[in-house]
Amino acid sequence: MSFAVTILGSSSAKPTADRHPSAQVVNVHEQHYLVDAGEGVQQQMIRAGINPLKLRAVFISHLHGDHVYGLFPLISTLGLYGRRTPLPVYAPAPLGEMLEAHMRYFDTDLPYEVEWHEVRTTEHALLLGNRTLEVWSVPLRHRIPTAGFLFREKKPPLNADKFKITKYGLTIAQIAAAKRGEDVLLDTGEVLPNDEVAYEPYAPRSYAYLSDTAYSAKAAELVRGADLLYHEATYAAAERKTARQRGHSTTEEAAKAALRAGAKRLIIGHYSSRYKDERVLVEEARTLFPETYPATERSTFTIEKQRPEKTNRNAPTKTER
Amino acid sequence: MSFAVTILGSSSAKPTADRHPSAQVVNVHEQHYLVDAGEGVQQQMIRAGINPLKLRAVFISHLHGDHVYGLFPLISTLGLYGRRTPLPVYAPAPLGEMLEAHMRYFDTDLPYEVEWHEVRTTEHALLLGNRTLEVWSVPLRHRIPTAGFLFREKKPPLNADKFKITKYGLTIAQIAAAKRGEDVLLDTGEVLPNDEVAYEPYAPRSYAYLSDTAYSAKAAELVRGADLLYHEATYAAAERKTARQRGHSTTEEAAKAALRAGAKRLIIGHYSSRYKDERVLVEEARTLFPETYPATERSTFTIEKQRPEKTNRNAPTKTER
Repeated sequence: MSFAVTILGSSSAKPTADRHPSAQVVNVHEQHYLVDAGEGVQQQMIRAGINPLKLRAVFISHLHGDHVYGLFPLISTLGLYGRRTPLPVYAPAPLGEMLEAHMRYFDTDLPYEVEWHEVRTTEHALLLGNRTLEVWSVPLRHRIPTAGFLFREKKPPLNADKFKITKYGLTIAQIAAAKRGEDVLLDTGEVLPNDEVAYEPYAPRSYAYLSDTAYSAKAAELVRGADLLYHEATYAAAERKTARQRGHSTTEEAAKAALRAGAKRLIIGHYSSRYKDERVLVEEARTLFPETYPATERSTFTIEKQRPEKTNRNAPTKTER
Repeated sequence: MSFAVTILGSSSAKPTADRHPSAQVVNVHEQHYLVDAGEGVQQQMIRAGINPLKLRAVFISHLHGDHVYGLFPLISTLGLYGRRTPLPVYAPAPLGEMLEAHMRYFDTDLPYEVEWHEVRTTEHALLLGNRTLEVWSVPLRHRIPTAGFLFREKKPPLNADKFKITKYGLTIAQIAAAKRGEDVLLDTGEVLPNDEVAYEPYAPRSYAYLSDTAYSAKAAELVRGADLLYHEATYAAAERKTARQRGHSTTEEAAKAALRAGAKRLIIGHYSSRYKDERVLVEEARTLFPETYPATERSTFTIEKQRPEKTNRNAPTKTER
């Protein structure tokens, strides 16, 4: 029941010898989702020990080259590996046209389908929902249409409290009712409220990816309560004007977004190539938001399971809306 | 007056953690030419200490993704670096169309021109000629239209023999005549044959790039006398059948091509991902052609200047045709 984010690229548009352009893999219960696909992403996945064949879907935030150039070679190589499962790609327009052009020139006999799903970058919409996960778009403020992504684990099934099962001698039918969230009618006629006999094993976890973007209070509100927030910090605080002109954020703005979102931890990245050592950026952000960490390539941030707050059990959790 | 080849990629279509897809930089008198542009080439250039802005031209052998996917991000980044000089790209069709598609989606405001020059892959033709260099296409045998490239240094200007200048008391006009290749008329009425007073300071050097290809005697003949020959060796000798089916070569076939061409040194590369250690491939090739070396990424092969053979001075050199 893992929930983890592996950083594959940390640079902005100009890569350096050590930093690759934007790409991450989000692992939710061993389902792998690629978020942005900068050049070299297929090799970075191999280096990080992530099998590219295992990708469940791809999410592209916007169509600047440093977020998407690695997608086309990845698509080709998955064909060479013999992938058969369709690959959904969630991205703004005109990715559909780009994929068509790509297929025309390079991958006419691909053994699997690439399915483009348009992300409308002005909407906070549910893009993908399955048994364990929802992925939502988050409108961002960049030079071209751009969306962030919010990965929210679904509430896990309720567990029945073993101590109570024994205490009341509950039958299989009564336990099943408790796990469905129902109150339990005992043979004595007494009714056990559901939250006395069943409990959420852990609180649903969430990860928000906000890049590329200028500071947006609205985006921060939309990812409220994220356990882990990735926010770009292309520039140091002193470069606020440059950041604004280019639709990017400073370290301070990333920290401000984390505060506004009430995030537990912040990862910053998408560093301009002018910063040889990202520690100066991390230190700046930490003055406002101490739980800031650098996007270091091939490092993994794990969100551990936590017990839900008891009082919240039957109410929507903090990250729900 | 350097003449050197730096390997930037050594893998075949599936990159590995350590091997990048095909790309090399040929440095002729500090003019840099990119040969093939697999994914990640811009980063590999930076790692090898080669300034991407210094590229004089690009040569693409064929339009399989592992030889060209790195071109598009490179074009974008050169724009970010502020390149103003046009970039000639020599490649088979339909690269022109691909570039148009690329410009439409990604680089509408590029500050320099990308000039596509079509390489006709069935012709042995002069593609580029300048003061110091000629680059020729070499038809190859692959699954799609493919050309290799022959880099041939032009004959350097003649030097005048200092000993003879003193001995005969030559004037500046007489020295200039000797350097132009003329015989020298002395004041005594005696005629000094040019090759007694002038000499070639070094023999023109040549490098041939033959990839991707099945064994081709014709291609080997066309690059006859190459000081350095890169020939793909995707497979070990035992995989001859697979190699043939896929339009590739084995180690033995690469060595055979080097023998046929009378090359001085052979580099093999484009290794299939099944070979974790390329030494087995190099050893196989060496049994036939001892001067075989592996394409190791970021390694440089320098062709040192050599005195021309005296008897050949006024005749075409071996690599000329």
